Amino acid sequence: METKKSLMMLPGPTNLSDRVMQAMTKPIIGHRGPEFHSLHESILTNLRYVFQTENDVFVLTSSGTGGVYCAISNVVNPNDKVIVPVFGVFSQRMKEKIVSCGGNVVELPLKWGEAPTADQIARIAERERDAKILALTYNETSTGVTVRDLPEIGKIAKENNLLLVVDAISVLGGDKLPVDKWGVDICIVGSQKCLACPPGLAMVSVSDRAWEVIEKTAVRPYYFDLVTMREFIAKVETPFTPAVPLFYALDEALKMIREEGLEKRFKRHSICAKAFYHAVEALKLKPFPNEEVRSNTVIAVNMPDGVDNTELRKIMKEQHEVLVGGGQGELKKSIIRIGCMGNISENETIRTIDALEKALNALRYPVEVGIGVEAARQVFQ
Amino acid sequence: METKKSLMMLPGPTNLSDRVMQAMTKPIIGHRGPEFHSLHESILTNLRYVFQTENDVFVLTSSGTGGVYCAISNVVNPNDKVIVPVFGVFSQRMKEKIVSCGGNVVELPLKWGEAPTADQIARIAERERDAKILALTYNETSTGVTVRDLPEIGKIAKENNLLLVVDAISVLGGDKLPVDKWGVDICIVGSQKCLACPPGLAMVSVSDRAWEVIEKTAVRPYYFDLVTMREFIAKVETPFTPAVPLFYALDEALKMIREEGLEKRFKRHSICAKAFYHAVEALKLKPFPNEEVRSNTVIAVNMPDGVDNTELRKIMKEQHEVLVGGGQGELKKSIIRIGCMGNISENETIRTIDALEKALNALRYPVEVGIGVEAARQVFQ
Repeated sequence: METKKSLMMLPGPTNLSDRVMQAMTKPIIGHRGPEFHSLHESILTNLRYVFQTENDVFVLTSSGTGGVYCAISNVVNPNDKVIVPVFGVFSQRMKEKIVSCGGNVVELPLKWGEAPTADQIARIAERERDAKILALTYNETSTGVTVRDLPEIGKIAKENNLLLVVDAISVLGGDKLPVDKWGVDICIVGSQKCLACPPGLAMVSVSDRAWEVIEKTAVRPYYFDLVTMREFIAKVETPFTPAVPLFYALDEALKMIREEGLEKRFKRHSICAKAFYHAVEALKLKPFPNEEVRSNTVIAVNMPDGVDNTELRKIMKEQHEVLVGGGQGELKKSIIRIGCMGNISENETIRTIDALEKALNALRYPVEVGIGVEAARQVFQ
Repeated sequence: METKKSLMMLPGPTNLSDRVMQAMTKPIIGHRGPEFHSLHESILTNLRYVFQTENDVFVLTSSGTGGVYCAISNVVNPNDKVIVPVFGVFSQRMKEKIVSCGGNVVELPLKWGEAPTADQIARIAERERDAKILALTYNETSTGVTVRDLPEIGKIAKENNLLLVVDAISVLGGDKLPVDKWGVDICIVGSQKCLACPPGLAMVSVSDRAWEVIEKTAVRPYYFDLVTMREFIAKVETPFTPAVPLFYALDEALKMIREEGLEKRFKRHSICAKAFYHAVEALKLKPFPNEEVRSNTVIAVNMPDGVDNTELRKIMKEQHEVLVGGGQGELKKSIIRIGCMGNISENETIRTIDALEKALNALRYPVEVGIGVEAARQVFQ
């Protein structure tokens, strides 16, 4: 099957720039030599900028899930009590990882579409005095929800001596997350989301407080042992062979982020998100999440009665060459999810809304074609 | 630092063809759609050809070490008895992985440069009647040794009801390893060695006998759970986001292997290896391993008195643009290692020997420049 270049509006992977794409074809180098050290150093420096941290940062050859598993398995011993708000597929997976490490999960179950609040976390921390870790999904990719109380939650975690592990896979680089300022001990991001890099890498930051916990963990998985990684990072190396072409791509992607600047980048994401939400409203559709916790990087939209999301996505892809995501888990049939990530701009936003309008129309949903695009344009003006 | 294109004669990563390199720049696709299914199917079909197996095969987004850890952690329960011949850095790492999973290691310690023999394995299997697994490094990358008795060892494993796990990271695709015929239950290869693909992927085959064991394993690591992978492979998917550009590269690399044919490919590797060994002899140097177990994919050569391997490698790299590896572990200073992998041909072989001769000469090792190249040329004629 020939791969036609479609507009990638999935909630990751996202569209790549030519610069990042071409970076992958640089000559392969040995990973124990000065060329790799220099590449790796450049990546680590720019990662600290993107994470807004002075903490140690690591690049893992794995998917984002590998990164989250790395974080969890390095801090959770059997029977450790871990607080986990569950409000979608990825926070559910967070819970599963903790269980697989023998952790004693204290679940904060929430309705999908909601986010945990600072109050809820404060109450559960008050009740569970012997909890060791708070494991939080900052941006729930499956529901399009961002935990807007994270700054406050960071303080609560610190006051209660909870280690704060944050899955920021689908948001870091696209929305605010000053890791040190907000007191995030371990933060994880994937390469293929807001960093606008190909999939295959996960990045993890580790605070001093986290190191104290990690060093005491009885069994850290061989491939994901952060203590081993720390030994190698001292010589700007990785313990095992890194995916060099993806390191090249990441280096280029991070350079582009520095050139743009984080603040401008966050603003660009939030404006495009706003345009999406206004268009959705103009089309008389309903975003899935509660208004105050809507994500700027994943736009989740309820399907109206009579519109099948599989058919809708098929028309958008085949007739308009725009790929958007379907739902996951219990939302499989009932929503679509649009990635608003990385290189997102007015152009991609308008093209996606245009495709959405036309596809809805083709499925006999009563929509005046152009009305969504118009609403979005007003946001950009 | 600008990355100049050197001849990569490390024991991996190895030189890439333009076809494989360019494949990485194909448009990124979603990993839950038909384009990915088609790409993945093509890879799996050709992997079965390269592994010479009817078993299930999986592509993991991780280094080769991740692949070996995956294999071990899916079959080793705490206190399971595992036989491990240790004869270099990578077989030592195999042991460490088993220990990290709580396994009860029965080590067969060997001198570095040797390989375990069928007799030794038969004796240890006879003695350790309750052993469950034999974990073998087929090609010890750190010493340039191949376990030539593997076909016989496969029979012994079967007779003794030992599950046979084989680390073939640096050899599969470059030398004989008919997985089914030799009775290998789990076989692991890395992308960046004899398959001539960039680093970042590991491939694993799993026999029916292995599945029986895996299903009973109490805790399989979340990221490396083969049972989850099997669920997803049924729909030609991976559980977590795959490194799509590397999948493209692997697909192209495997197509090139099929075009050449395995037998021709093995022959090409063995002729180049023979040329290397003849040249080494002509230069009055000594290969590190015992003669009967010398690898066709990693050529390990003792440094003569007075020649510093770091200086030698530096001259080869800086003056001749040829990268070879140094030693590892206890051999760090005493050997060099040349990769004879993937796209290796007469051209790369001669260029490497030429650089080696000249660098030795520059370090005042008494060598008639040209004598090694001449010996190699005779092999090719």
